[in-house]
Amino acid sequence: MATAWKAGLEDVVAARSAITSIDGERGRLYYRGYEIGALTARVPFEAVTSLLWFGALPEPDEAAGFAARLQAARSLPGGVDALLERIPLASHPLDVLRTAVSFVASVDPDTSRVDREANVRKCERLMGLIPAVVSAWHRRRSGQPSLPPRDDLSHAAHFLYALTGHAPTPEAARLMDAVLTLHADHEFNASTFALRVAVATMADLHAAMVAAIATLKGPRHGGANEDVLAMLREIGDPARARSFVEARLAAREGLSKGERGDPKSRVPGFGHRVYRVDDARARVLRGMARTVAEATGRIRLFEVAERVYETVTSKTGLPVNVDFFSAVVYDALEIPPDLCTSIFAVGRVAGWCAHALEQYADNRLIRPRADYTGVAPRPLAEAATSLAAG
Amino acid sequence: MATAWKAGLEDVVAARSAITSIDGERGRLYYRGYEIGALTARVPFEAVTSLLWFGALPEPDEAAGFAARLQAARSLPGGVDALLERIPLASHPLDVLRTAVSFVASVDPDTSRVDREANVRKCERLMGLIPAVVSAWHRRRSGQPSLPPRDDLSHAAHFLYALTGHAPTPEAARLMDAVLTLHADHEFNASTFALRVAVATMADLHAAMVAAIATLKGPRHGGANEDVLAMLREIGDPARARSFVEARLAAREGLSKGERGDPKSRVPGFGHRVYRVDDARARVLRGMARTVAEATGRIRLFEVAERVYETVTSKTGLPVNVDFFSAVVYDALEIPPDLCTSIFAVGRVAGWCAHALEQYADNRLIRPRADYTGVAPRPLAEAATSLAAG
Repeated sequence: MATAWKAGLEDVVAARSAITSIDGERGRLYYRGYEIGALTARVPFEAVTSLLWFGALPEPDEAAGFAARLQAARSLPGGVDALLERIPLASHPLDVLRTAVSFVASVDPDTSRVDREANVRKCERLMGLIPAVVSAWHRRRSGQPSLPPRDDLSHAAHFLYALTGHAPTPEAARLMDAVLTLHADHEFNASTFALRVAVATMADLHAAMVAAIATLKGPRHGGANEDVLAMLREIGDPARARSFVEARLAAREGLSKGERGDPKSRVPGFGHRVYRVDDARARVLRGMARTVAEATGRIRLFEVAERVYETVTSKTGLPVNVDFFSAVVYDALEIPPDLCTSIFAVGRVAGWCAHALEQYADNRLIRPRADYTGVAPRPLAEAATSLAAG
Repeated sequence: MATAWKAGLEDVVAARSAITSIDGERGRLYYRGYEIGALTARVPFEAVTSLLWFGALPEPDEAAGFAARLQAARSLPGGVDALLERIPLASHPLDVLRTAVSFVASVDPDTSRVDREANVRKCERLMGLIPAVVSAWHRRRSGQPSLPPRDDLSHAAHFLYALTGHAPTPEAARLMDAVLTLHADHEFNASTFALRVAVATMADLHAAMVAAIATLKGPRHGGANEDVLAMLREIGDPARARSFVEARLAAREGLSKGERGDPKSRVPGFGHRVYRVDDARARVLRGMARTVAEATGRIRLFEVAERVYETVTSKTGLPVNVDFFSAVVYDALEIPPDLCTSIFAVGRVAGWCAHALEQYADNRLIRPRADYTGVAPRPLAEAATSLAAG
């Protein structure tokens, strides 16, 4: 066994992939060779999804067929409504999403199949299922009935419709479409990697998807963007931003390594394992955040964000990440903080599916080793046998 | 980024661990330094669990306190019974377990806390929850009511009681205790590794546990032992075993790499990423399988297993793994094949908890890289803009 190793598998290659490439030094991100900024707001999320899964942008008739199949998956499968009724209203939306997707394994007609045709069908259904559960749950906890799906709206617009009960403006629909594309994939991020570990055991797609949603929850991954929005609202006033950040950074100095691990000790939205500079997604989101904040009159939170950004980057040199300005966009779309990570999932499911299809097609069990640091082999003392079960 | 890499992270160290060590060349396995064969049937599973979590075998009063806390967690939390009523009876038991554990995140009082005290409490509750769900589900699908927990039985004996409705014989209780210990931990196996990936995002323990259960499902991991039992029953007659195995091995020769990935093309229960020889668990289980098969009069299936074992090892040289003879033990305990992986979870939850506690205590995000093999950066054709969402 190799004796040199990198904590957190930093820079360690775990598998081949032809889906997404990252240039961490320059802050660039490509889906199947297309730069993320070029795709965003020019190619609809449905076509980006098709690109991620199949490797090429669809021809118009393919795109229409694909979009129609996603559209057909907008209804909740039988039993999900009844399941949601059993879940306490105070539950975290991402926990509910995980439970519901896990449940759907019990009703999906293809659950136990892992051939490519069945997997593509399941991917299409999961693309519809995830926004349907997120919106149905949000309406339920808000005391509003869930809505029958419409077939005259894009994927992004329909998600906003299902959440709010009214068709969004074209600007809001384009914004959500862009957010979904920006979150659609990011190579071997933790949730995608967990999904690939599950797929590599030849577990079925629903199982693997549940592993991904479970892993997204952490505040060092998808959970960060709700922490950002909560923080920006806590600061509230642009004039308070600098002192808030300085106080948190100073407090962090005095913490032990273990305490620094506490996400509450961090300024969320900064730093990334792979990027050394602000990444393309963050740059696009910053521009979108300014535009939408001005358009909706919610400029104050954007200004708080700008002050936090300036302070953190000047004090720490950490790059801003995708979670930071997306929080401002979510605020402009009137999305509550605890729904942010679920919206991340509505976008990332496209990438999860792409990676699952790729891993099933050329699979090897993902099973690393530990660097054992425990006690050496030792005999069992006679006394231990007194513990023997009767 | 390193250019040399190992598919499936074979022999790649992902993190430090002081819990379990494996000697793959000699087929040896140690929990905190104690050889697995010495622990099995001499130290009860509750004390093995305490050993895995805290690093030392408990003193008698500690052991009693720990066992009492696990005992207190034998009742299903509120809402789980009602949830199970909503799940179709034909569901795979492991899917149900995953859904139920995910749901319990919504009702556990400590879900959002990740400090050690809260995590230990959650670990104790999960130790009770998992067997309680497995047994309640099995009784429900068998048309039998679930039972109020008893407090006069060991963890292993209580699980058999909750499954069958009657207290097991001392021999059966000892057998189940040994099976749980043998399955309790195995270093960075795929489900444990998925759990550590989830914990490393600072996701909560229930989320991480769900990722583990999801990953256990695959037939190249926990799912294998139900495939073994199904295969042994399909063979049925020791006289047919050799020709069955030879036919499957011969058919495999003609398959493409992709088709060989299909678990149905394999003889399940043989081969292991880490072991080069039969491992200690398999050796212990083989002895137990013979004894229990003789005691219960179910010797025929054991003889089928012996013939399969001889044929596979002589033809392929592959070591037998933990899944193979455990299937014979499950058969003797009258456990149906599709429950085997769930019983694996009843044992492995001890190790999952140990690894979660270890990862939370010294955490770093687990986020590897991909070896990108896709198309180089390319411009977006003008045609693509015709796809733009309206």
